[in-house]
Amino acid sequence: MNTRTTIQRIFNFSSGPAVLPCPVLEEIQRDLLALPGVGMSVLEISHRSKPFEDILAQTEASVRAIAGIRSNYKVLFLQGGASTQFSMVPMNLLGPGQTADYIDGGSWADKALKEARKVGTVNLAASTKGEGYARLPQQSELTLTKGAAYVHMTSNNTIEGTEYKRLPEVGDTPLVSDTSSNMFSGPIDIERHALIYAGSQKNLGPAGVALVIIREDLLQRSIDKKATLPTMMNYAVHAENGSLYNTPPTFTVYALGLVMKWIIAEGGLKAIGERNARKAAKLYAEIDRTGFYRGTARKEDRSLMNVTFRLASEELEQAFVKESTAAGLDGLKGHRSVGGMRASIYNAFPEAGVDALVSFMREFEQRRG
Amino acid sequence: MNTRTTIQRIFNFSSGPAVLPCPVLEEIQRDLLALPGVGMSVLEISHRSKPFEDILAQTEASVRAIAGIRSNYKVLFLQGGASTQFSMVPMNLLGPGQTADYIDGGSWADKALKEARKVGTVNLAASTKGEGYARLPQQSELTLTKGAAYVHMTSNNTIEGTEYKRLPEVGDTPLVSDTSSNMFSGPIDIERHALIYAGSQKNLGPAGVALVIIREDLLQRSIDKKATLPTMMNYAVHAENGSLYNTPPTFTVYALGLVMKWIIAEGGLKAIGERNARKAAKLYAEIDRTGFYRGTARKEDRSLMNVTFRLASEELEQAFVKESTAAGLDGLKGHRSVGGMRASIYNAFPEAGVDALVSFMREFEQRRG
Repeated sequence: MNTRTTIQRIFNFSSGPAVLPCPVLEEIQRDLLALPGVGMSVLEISHRSKPFEDILAQTEASVRAIAGIRSNYKVLFLQGGASTQFSMVPMNLLGPGQTADYIDGGSWADKALKEARKVGTVNLAASTKGEGYARLPQQSELTLTKGAAYVHMTSNNTIEGTEYKRLPEVGDTPLVSDTSSNMFSGPIDIERHALIYAGSQKNLGPAGVALVIIREDLLQRSIDKKATLPTMMNYAVHAENGSLYNTPPTFTVYALGLVMKWIIAEGGLKAIGERNARKAAKLYAEIDRTGFYRGTARKEDRSLMNVTFRLASEELEQAFVKESTAAGLDGLKGHRSVGGMRASIYNAFPEAGVDALVSFMREFEQRRG
Repeated sequence: MNTRTTIQRIFNFSSGPAVLPCPVLEEIQRDLLALPGVGMSVLEISHRSKPFEDILAQTEASVRAIAGIRSNYKVLFLQGGASTQFSMVPMNLLGPGQTADYIDGGSWADKALKEARKVGTVNLAASTKGEGYARLPQQSELTLTKGAAYVHMTSNNTIEGTEYKRLPEVGDTPLVSDTSSNMFSGPIDIERHALIYAGSQKNLGPAGVALVIIREDLLQRSIDKKATLPTMMNYAVHAENGSLYNTPPTFTVYALGLVMKWIIAEGGLKAIGERNARKAAKLYAEIDRTGFYRGTARKEDRSLMNVTFRLASEELEQAFVKESTAAGLDGLKGHRSVGGMRASIYNAFPEAGVDALVSFMREFEQRRG
């Protein structure tokens, strides 16, 4: 059923929950009352049923295929978003007498390290907080702890619009990365990480599930803590039960699986990454064209996912947001903590929407510049 | 759009995720590509957007209207299901030097108390574990602690098919109830409780959200623990942020809101409760008719939601499950820990499905009795 032609859809620049691929929405709609051959809605089937077991297995297989994830990593689908991972990471991986290194390159990294401090000893390996997180800490700035339990980083800063182009070098220390806002936006080197986590609601699907990819050897730390850690916060429990220790968010896993199928159909992470680079380049070119707009992130660290920019005055910014919304370009207001504008252009955001924004920016500049 | 006539749907006796009302599924399907007047799918809208704020406010208002919940209770929508509540309850409510009383009337109550023991001192107020949880502990059996932090109970035992008809008397001690499998299945006296929690996937909506109703005065205990408790595990944080501390499972909240609207349209909890009583009575009457079937729960404690019964041999039970599935009666196999059969007949389960099961039971008895 293709009802796209009859339904008015707008360009959704939201930072998350965010735009989803139209073919995914259409498949969800088509099968909403009853999955083919099942006779029940995906919203109604038991998580212990064969149809859901198949959905879960297929979703995991797609995730593994997309990123070339080998069997020495477990793929988990958990609840509570990245915010719960902020606590689960130290609760599982940080032992007494150990230190965890945190690289503080953005507001969410800061939240993650605050949660870790409740659990154990944290070393602030580097921070650009004093510069309003306008850039990422550089390799030479990192003060890493020898024998640290892990190093935590945030691969893309949704609020400030910065993104790592190269992973930091951390030696043999397990690298833990919050990839919530750029997961599967291009090729990712899984093996450089010990643990990757991402909330679903940007590039992966609707809100309500967190994808966790954890190297098997790390699970021993969780096994050792079984007697004390809340069961739902224990990675080993979820790994041993294949994400079925309790009832998972079945529909969200299903929808995430459809998005994974779409990524594969689009040509995989290389093709997706090239398209994302092209989309972002168009926007940054327009930002840099005359000086009327001002990119807020250091050029080398600019995010391909969240493009942040400002105007000469807050009055002008308010006008920009108001008029762009009226023109069908929704969600361009920057995060309340930094102001200005933010265009989130995740995988499913159409190139036509980027072109529409560029046109609007030119037109706005002509009128107001 | 009514496509019910063209799509083959079967009777879904699953214990959860479970059957949802057809009008709810149809509304979800109709608006899946774009919410009316919004131009984006409910799966794509920001949790900070006006449309979602409206959905959240409307959902909370419906929950409050259905159960007459006054302003001295907070209504929260959290992630992680009831299993996460097993830990959140003691982590928030049980202080050092305090004792929590647990009434152990079923497998899930047992899980809840095991999590509480990781956090602090637990008094087993009563247990029917030794009797296979075939009945609920009675008032006279309760050994309650004077000045306990709270008393924890499970209002309906999904696995064993028992359900409280009257709440236990616990004096001034705050009563905490896991109502996952009979929430809103009939009138509920909120004011007798200090905290109520329920996973969504039985009577409330799709899997992926837990409804928590907490009396305001209890929040002080969570406020006192802010420095140490993981932020996502703190009731006060979620209450202060109106369930928007982090990205909530937006779609699941939306779907739950539609189910609440449906409950109201069906006449509210009194009407729903009467229908549920009628449905269950039909099944228990058939179970008791000749002795061919045997109800596993003590008659006084029989659940209106989960009807458990057995046959003379496991071979006969296997045949019953196999043949009923083939007849379009899905999900009648009992929980793996107790065996036998279980018919879960939640709010949205149609009376016609109960009639179909009764007919099948008679026919099966005639053939095999």
